[in-house]
Amino acid sequence: MLATLPVMAHSTDGVPQPDPAAAGFEDPEYRTGVVDLLGALAYGELTAFERLAEDAKMAPTLLDKAALAAMASAELAHFSALRDYLAGRGVDAYEAMEPFRGTFDRFHEHTTPADWPEGLVKAYVGDGLAADFYREVAAYLDGATRELILATLADTGHSQFVVDRVRESITTTPAVAGRLALWGRRLVGEALTQAQSVVAERDALSTLLAGGVDRPGMDLAAIGRMFARLTENHAVRMARLGLSS
Amino acid sequence: MLATLPVMAHSTDGVPQPDPAAAGFEDPEYRTGVVDLLGALAYGELTAFERLAEDAKMAPTLLDKAALAAMASAELAHFSALRDYLAGRGVDAYEAMEPFRGTFDRFHEHTTPADWPEGLVKAYVGDGLAADFYREVAAYLDGATRELILATLADTGHSQFVVDRVRESITTTPAVAGRLALWGRRLVGEALTQAQSVVAERDALSTLLAGGVDRPGMDLAAIGRMFARLTENHAVRMARLGLSS
Repeated sequence: MLATLPVMAHSTDGVPQPDPAAAGFEDPEYRTGVVDLLGALAYGELTAFERLAEDAKMAPTLLDKAALAAMASAELAHFSALRDYLAGRGVDAYEAMEPFRGTFDRFHEHTTPADWPEGLVKAYVGDGLAADFYREVAAYLDGATRELILATLADTGHSQFVVDRVRESITTTPAVAGRLALWGRRLVGEALTQAQSVVAERDALSTLLAGGVDRPGMDLAAIGRMFARLTENHAVRMARLGLSS
Repeated sequence: MLATLPVMAHSTDGVPQPDPAAAGFEDPEYRTGVVDLLGALAYGELTAFERLAEDAKMAPTLLDKAALAAMASAELAHFSALRDYLAGRGVDAYEAMEPFRGTFDRFHEHTTPADWPEGLVKAYVGDGLAADFYREVAAYLDGATRELILATLADTGHSQFVVDRVRESITTTPAVAGRLALWGRRLVGEALTQAQSVVAERDALSTLLAGGVDRPGMDLAAIGRMFARLTENHAVRMARLGLSS
């Protein structure tokens, strides 16, 4: 379904029609920014697959292992959709991902879960934060790209599993809640640090976020409000896990 | 598609009909044997996911990494189909897999690839051998279970990728061919050793293979011929990779 989304966004009654907002893709500056954004998102999904597959090893039961493996597969399906979308626009996703390898790899190096509950919290909090960020940015993009991003970020249907498991481990070992709350704060700090360094290094990305003469963007106040929303949503997610933020 | 196969096998024109061969599932001895077989197959698929995801880390490029990750996801989809099929017959797949953890885990411990080409050869040769074995056994099972197994073993469409990559690495470094040929022999030896120990330990499995009064099975001569076919097919696969067997 994901793979057909871009086409759907372009057609009405089966007749292909130019997406009014897609015109932006012809603008080299806009295109460079979008390719950067999708490249970062794609590499994020590919590393999410790797990270979840790795964390699945720590699963206490085969059921837990299969659940995390299914989450990993869902991330890979998202990656494939992004790669195919870029390919449809003549962009090599593997090249588009290259500039973001350092950042994502550093993030994962700095936030390697020590055990199964830390892996679950990272999957839930990290994916939630990333999804919020891309959703905010998607609002400023052409229709087809926006729909692709929203589909990519759709819940893989496994969050309830994570919430249940984390709450169980807190009930069994209440002392773990303090450690996991701290872990959640470390994850957000590290994610924001890396996100900031990406935007600072990639001019095309910051230009994309800032908008243009004929394209709305975020000013400094809007970026401030976005960060406030990201932080609020993070607190809601931590509370859902039974953790203070 | 996989998940709907068992239903398809049971219905004609949308009207559920008992599969003539499925009656066997009501026989406790047959059922125990089939549950064992599907449990082993399911655990094999789950560990194949883990192993391929692990090997993906050694990929020299992001394209290779994504290709191996896609193979891993395909194995997990097979696992899910087996789990759902067993669930539809009131069997907990996680319990059915338990007796086979030791064997498969030992196999993977004894055959940890040292590098990327060894990982590729293991994926290709190991999956091929397992597929051949299950396909042989499937011939003796009820229609629905047979169709499920054949669908589970369907090529994930990635073998050509493996063949191309292994041939490339032999062309680049001809010396590697000798080492990989040896590696292929080790894989087969280890796989047969473990398969033998499984059948020896699980009475239900050997009974299933031996057949019954009203159900065809394999006698010693048939088992001998099966092993000859497995070995021949293995040699064909090694030749396809450009390796002697």
